[in-house]
Amino acid sequence: MGTGSDERPIGLFDSGVGGLTVLSEVRRRLPAEATVYLGDGARTPYGPRPADDVRRFTLECADWLLAQDVKLLILACNTATSQALPQVRDRSPVPVLGVVRPGAVSAAASTRAGHVGVIATAGTVASGAYPAAIGEADARLIVTQQACPELVPLVEAGEMSGPRAEGLLHGYLGELLAADPDIDTLLLGCTHYPLLRPLIEAEVGPGVAVVDSAFTAALAAEDLLEALRARSSSGSSRHRVATTGPVEAFSAVAGRVFGAELPAVERAAVEGV
Amino acid sequence: MGTGSDERPIGLFDSGVGGLTVLSEVRRRLPAEATVYLGDGARTPYGPRPADDVRRFTLECADWLLAQDVKLLILACNTATSQALPQVRDRSPVPVLGVVRPGAVSAAASTRAGHVGVIATAGTVASGAYPAAIGEADARLIVTQQACPELVPLVEAGEMSGPRAEGLLHGYLGELLAADPDIDTLLLGCTHYPLLRPLIEAEVGPGVAVVDSAFTAALAAEDLLEALRARSSSGSSRHRVATTGPVEAFSAVAGRVFGAELPAVERAAVEGV
Repeated sequence: MGTGSDERPIGLFDSGVGGLTVLSEVRRRLPAEATVYLGDGARTPYGPRPADDVRRFTLECADWLLAQDVKLLILACNTATSQALPQVRDRSPVPVLGVVRPGAVSAAASTRAGHVGVIATAGTVASGAYPAAIGEADARLIVTQQACPELVPLVEAGEMSGPRAEGLLHGYLGELLAADPDIDTLLLGCTHYPLLRPLIEAEVGPGVAVVDSAFTAALAAEDLLEALRARSSSGSSRHRVATTGPVEAFSAVAGRVFGAELPAVERAAVEGV
Repeated sequence: MGTGSDERPIGLFDSGVGGLTVLSEVRRRLPAEATVYLGDGARTPYGPRPADDVRRFTLECADWLLAQDVKLLILACNTATSQALPQVRDRSPVPVLGVVRPGAVSAAASTRAGHVGVIATAGTVASGAYPAAIGEADARLIVTQQACPELVPLVEAGEMSGPRAEGLLHGYLGELLAADPDIDTLLLGCTHYPLLRPLIEAEVGPGVAVVDSAFTAALAAEDLLEALRARSSSGSSRHRVATTGPVEAFSAVAGRVFGAELPAVERAAVEGV
């Protein structure tokens, strides 16, 4: 605090490329900050994995990011947040932000009808993290979840549009809105899903507000650095992106999404992979 | 962070009794936490005062709270936040939260039409803090402000209902909605205003969502303590309430609002008062 500043990078973790949506928002809001991003490309997707595996993988990846001397660690992955946030916080010497709470608070603020829909991976849905976090924000809200197991593999394969993506979303969102037709707010409970946002908005129509946890997580990161007086003051931001898996495959998908913004992808030697 | 906990109290500051709405939310969400509240009863209201005075008074009161060994300082006053937050952060060895940003983020999440109304004190309106913070959350939003100089004196006088309160609100809110009839979200940009919430909701009708910065500030405090691993673990919470002015007058108003929850009010010897 005091008049301090902190030049260390912000670390971001995701199972794959989805957390790049959070990175993109963090870079837009905090252009002076250096960043290090790690995607666990070798073990993505996390959604269908048992909670114990998600916890172990997340801790292994968090250790790698902490070894890069980050000042703040963002779990830019809803599955990892919902299943491993307390464990990562126990281990970390720096503050750790998850993506569940900021999105839940925004969804609670957004709904008028009091009916919120959540789409997420099977693991996130099973964890119950979103209904719990939305209920903490406002206990009167009615939350309906829909697991969308095919969407992360779709995005990781680079298929952000086309008939297959549209068909899958039509099925998932149709099921959700049939389960609760009063839903007026849809929370994207996975950092991959903002990449499908145009298709999602077209499917649900203008009566349903779409809340994006990548955007809200970046706001929360900014708030935390402000409160801690830990913003960078040098402005000589440097950006690193790493994956535990094959560099070429990760670069191809990530580059299709982020274009020229993406730095050369490194291979990260994470213990346990 | 690590497995840490922190038994020191949370400090809250307001120009008067309004910040007790934030205290109330903090106590509800964080029942294990000790708190120290300071109201600058001798110099309330801050709304019409020059910015230099607000800054000096706020820093004097912040010094008193910091001397109580708080772990987190909440400026539970929108006028103080909008005019003195950076200065308090520069001086404070502990994190400082304001009430402007959390409310702005929730208001941005709430609006569908993209038109947000803000009611606040003259000082907060003149500072431009809310249009700036709402614009940072979403640059496309249209923000219309209405200064309500009579409301803080009304609440400090204990007049939370009745024809005078209704008449004032009818005038202020009528003017705001005439200036922009498309407003669908109304941000209560002063911590006193949640005490008038039933009258405000009746005046604007169900088509306008009311966002309350006391509620959102308490959520932000909880998030910050979680991220820092600085929650209390003892649960032996102790609550102190102090004022720079006459204890009897403060107790009378505060007690009418908070009833049995309110501890015995102390007189605080703040430098400069």
